[in-house]
Amino acid sequence: MRELEILAQIENHHLFAPLNAEQRKSLLANSRVQQYQEDALIFNKNEATSAFFFILEGAVRLYFSAPDGKEKTVRIFEKGSSFAEALMFMARDSYPANAMAVMPSKLLVVNSHFYRKMISQHADLAVALLAKCCEHIHLLSQQIEMLSVLDARSRFVQYIRQQLPVNAGDGYRLYIPMPKKDLAQYLAIRPETLSRLIRQLENEEILQWQQQNYVVVQSLARLQE
Amino acid sequence: MRELEILAQIENHHLFAPLNAEQRKSLLANSRVQQYQEDALIFNKNEATSAFFFILEGAVRLYFSAPDGKEKTVRIFEKGSSFAEALMFMARDSYPANAMAVMPSKLLVVNSHFYRKMISQHADLAVALLAKCCEHIHLLSQQIEMLSVLDARSRFVQYIRQQLPVNAGDGYRLYIPMPKKDLAQYLAIRPETLSRLIRQLENEEILQWQQQNYVVVQSLARLQE
Repeated sequence: MRELEILAQIENHHLFAPLNAEQRKSLLANSRVQQYQEDALIFNKNEATSAFFFILEGAVRLYFSAPDGKEKTVRIFEKGSSFAEALMFMARDSYPANAMAVMPSKLLVVNSHFYRKMISQHADLAVALLAKCCEHIHLLSQQIEMLSVLDARSRFVQYIRQQLPVNAGDGYRLYIPMPKKDLAQYLAIRPETLSRLIRQLENEEILQWQQQNYVVVQSLARLQE
Repeated sequence: MRELEILAQIENHHLFAPLNAEQRKSLLANSRVQQYQEDALIFNKNEATSAFFFILEGAVRLYFSAPDGKEKTVRIFEKGSSFAEALMFMARDSYPANAMAVMPSKLLVVNSHFYRKMISQHADLAVALLAKCCEHIHLLSQQIEMLSVLDARSRFVQYIRQQLPVNAGDGYRLYIPMPKKDLAQYLAIRPETLSRLIRQLENEEILQWQQQNYVVVQSLARLQE
């Protein structure tokens, strides 16, 4: 695999994006690309840590072996993800689980001592990494909200549409016969999600939740969408 | 609001969890709790940054004012979230958007100069924060996978059930008349999500995707669940 290809794959990842060109180059000089066959072991639980990993191709399963001999999968990491980097920052000296390639895989094995040394020598880099991580956390949180609201939204909108009389038009005031808290329970969504969702619909000028439990439908057409 | 109550609210947040008791205490001494009425402005776009925020109660809307006078909401932050901390790490000197309380809200306003100074004086702290952020990123990514797979799973399982003949039993081999890539498109899910989902179902011993596009149903009962 050419260095340019690797650089293109890692450049948007939160652990690599804040590094400058020179830092990335020396990091790659302290890393290696390793191929794994399907079901090949990457590391064993309790093995000494010396690296963290970035998946260039394939997928990796993290798992424990239970006392009854069965395996318990903790997580499957896909192409473009890193794993074991939190251990590096925590200075854990052994891996807490086993890792195995789920399919033929290609990993970037990054020397974690080198990475940590780089951070300790460049205080600015640690702060830049924190900035990137916090941004990434916001992005992911937003995705989670979107995904959970999306599902809640279809249930809530469905409910409102069922309650509306056939001849209802824009501006119709619908009485909701229970407080928000109970409606959330009825729709099997969390009260905070319902509140967020109502704010979203109000923001989009589709409906308004008014006092005394009235919903004013502002755009029936967009409610039906 | 009592200090103990505030400490209890912030202790699991990734920006505060890695701080020791003494550091949290001095951070609170450099923070203030501020109440905002509904629709009260928290900061204006281009205002100089001096703090980041943690929502103790209420919710906050981040927005831009478009040239046509309309407001464009970037994001709504709920109780338990922080905002504007990435700006602090990036050393941005002004806020890039407006922030307004969506409802009566109580914020912990944290002096960002103090927080940054604390990090630069304790190199270990920056690394501990990175560890916590990376852990949090993994947790959130896992939630996103779960949420997107959940939805994809119901669509895929629905498809398989529709294709099965009425008299099919465990061990039935079903021919899928298109490659995985096209099936993913047909179900309107991403190919990677379909692959992850199939691995999940294989892992749970519900079905197996075999060569030449055959799906072997291992447990019809659990497929129907």
